[in-house]
Amino acid sequence: MEFYIGPKIRRFAKLADFIDDINLNDRDVIVSNKAIIEPHLDLIGDATLLYQEQFGEGEPSDEVYDQLRAITPEESERIIAIGGGSVMDCAKLMCYSGDFKTKDLFDSDIVPQRTKKLYALPSTCGTGSEVTNLISVGLKELKVKKGIGFPSMYPDEAVIVPELLKTLPYNYFATSSMDALIHATEAFLSPRATPLSTMFSIDAIRRIMKGYRCVAELGERAVMENVDDFLLASTNAGIAFGNAGCAAVHALSYPLGGAYFIPHGEANQIMFMAVLKAYKEIKPVGKINELEDLLGECLQVPAADSLVALDQLTKTILPVKPLNEYGVKKEDVPAMAEGVEKGQQRLLQNNYVPLSVEKMIDIYMSLYR
Amino acid sequence: MEFYIGPKIRRFAKLADFIDDINLNDRDVIVSNKAIIEPHLDLIGDATLLYQEQFGEGEPSDEVYDQLRAITPEESERIIAIGGGSVMDCAKLMCYSGDFKTKDLFDSDIVPQRTKKLYALPSTCGTGSEVTNLISVGLKELKVKKGIGFPSMYPDEAVIVPELLKTLPYNYFATSSMDALIHATEAFLSPRATPLSTMFSIDAIRRIMKGYRCVAELGERAVMENVDDFLLASTNAGIAFGNAGCAAVHALSYPLGGAYFIPHGEANQIMFMAVLKAYKEIKPVGKINELEDLLGECLQVPAADSLVALDQLTKTILPVKPLNEYGVKKEDVPAMAEGVEKGQQRLLQNNYVPLSVEKMIDIYMSLYR
Repeated sequence: MEFYIGPKIRRFAKLADFIDDINLNDRDVIVSNKAIIEPHLDLIGDATLLYQEQFGEGEPSDEVYDQLRAITPEESERIIAIGGGSVMDCAKLMCYSGDFKTKDLFDSDIVPQRTKKLYALPSTCGTGSEVTNLISVGLKELKVKKGIGFPSMYPDEAVIVPELLKTLPYNYFATSSMDALIHATEAFLSPRATPLSTMFSIDAIRRIMKGYRCVAELGERAVMENVDDFLLASTNAGIAFGNAGCAAVHALSYPLGGAYFIPHGEANQIMFMAVLKAYKEIKPVGKINELEDLLGECLQVPAADSLVALDQLTKTILPVKPLNEYGVKKEDVPAMAEGVEKGQQRLLQNNYVPLSVEKMIDIYMSLYR
Repeated sequence: MEFYIGPKIRRFAKLADFIDDINLNDRDVIVSNKAIIEPHLDLIGDATLLYQEQFGEGEPSDEVYDQLRAITPEESERIIAIGGGSVMDCAKLMCYSGDFKTKDLFDSDIVPQRTKKLYALPSTCGTGSEVTNLISVGLKELKVKKGIGFPSMYPDEAVIVPELLKTLPYNYFATSSMDALIHATEAFLSPRATPLSTMFSIDAIRRIMKGYRCVAELGERAVMENVDDFLLASTNAGIAFGNAGCAAVHALSYPLGGAYFIPHGEANQIMFMAVLKAYKEIKPVGKINELEDLLGECLQVPAADSLVALDQLTKTILPVKPLNEYGVKKEDVPAMAEGVEKGQQRLLQNNYVPLSVEKMIDIYMSLYR
């Protein structure tokens, strides 16, 4: 067993309280998105402010990371990331000094040198990146999305600020919270799960199910009512998958993001139930029953009906379309599955059961209509 | 909210596996007790081996800490603590360089400089010291026990090795696990409790209740059967109180340890139910009801009966005597309560409800027969 939480976890009701607490000054760098930071510009003072999207729209490629690192003042001592997973992933690389390209981290022995302190403030609920030492990179030359992590990549502090979610558009809430639910679930079923990671998985699943039921009943206004639960669930799910790993859902969704630009949370939701269904078919007796017990308890249905109930609830929160409607051609599926088999072993080793290339093709094909 | 787990938490079934993993060598220092390390002497190789008890029996005074620090080779890079709370507390100080006395940490601005890496392997279940940045010191001149903590005092790794508990005498099991139960309970009721610390409190209480019921039914042989639960509970209770604090039980038990040499776990057990009873009387509606719900669920009794059921179960595991039988004179009680009021505010601020000196005298007096 091995379990580690890198950052200290803190919560402030308002961004101003955090800014006060750390004495933000002109040697600090804030990296964020314009839409997120704009309502709070009066708090920034003399700190350097960088927008991730200045260097490319959408989920960042290795070139975006490189440009952001190049522009980060060498003498700055602290990076404050305020945003979703992409902003935080950028910030993790901005904490390193030295002359290397992001893509070199994947195919060389570079051990990057951390020289700055990192505060990570999630503006979604969310990727959990604020508590992991992992980043996700779209490698432009290879046209593939990959994850990587270094021991020195943990933020120093994960800072939960509910105020930052006040203006979160519903779709970002839905995709990011779904991402968190999937982190918690994949970590729960992972063979690398430990009693400690499982405690965090369970807590995250409980909070998200409670919140989702409330949103399904009361509509979008229930998001902010449950924001503390969603935020803590996202952080706890990050701790769970940071220790026990993600698996096939993330592995199979990577080509959807990398080649078809479907956003991470939505791509995951597309694959989520199809993977759970395949797991249940291949190995109906095992840890998946504990998941069914937990979901049954959360959704107040018999355990045997819990996966169907989960499917219904998650589709209410975030409807997804058949793969053809995203422009994914059936003839591309075999190459996608082979790409996953070849490139995502880091994730596939955490599957509840091994999935062959044929099985992965079946899973993709089940998502056409 | 603020939550932090300093050390990485790892588990090895056997001590040999850990020793292999870290490549123990002649620049390493092991601090332990003779009875604990003797069955494993063949694993030590060229590492320096120090016994805590060489420098004084019982729970260590500041002078013991000072002697151990003085004898620790300056050039050593790693300290490996294998033992109970006292050994770990010694090891925490052995990681600091510089010319200071332990007692000076309590009344000066010294910020000790950490120069060594610390692995903490508990041999009881237990103090939770392997996951906290706190130590407990008997100050010889002042004849008082006090706690203190520095941000740099966390072990780097808390290493759980069930094999180390194989030869644990029953009495050490009982006192140390009771200590863990009390850590978890005090942290649960603390006004500094957060959703994250509470998660660890609940997990610890559940595991200990499950184990205790098994030991109460099957006798001492059930200790080793439940050793993984007891060890993890102890670590999780340490994480809970390391973040949310201990309170009146610990505050009131300190004079019993400091002046009457009653071991820490037993002194805590003496005070435990009396403090809970006082809490319940003073503020019957509040977080204590959540504790009663949890205990009721664990002990399979109605919540209203749960504190009585807890009392019965804990007395089966670790019977305690009236205060007079420990040699505590009734006429000493007022001075003890005043000493607690004066010296233990760090703990008393975490009480479920404030306790006046008069109330603390009442609590002590209720323990005479």
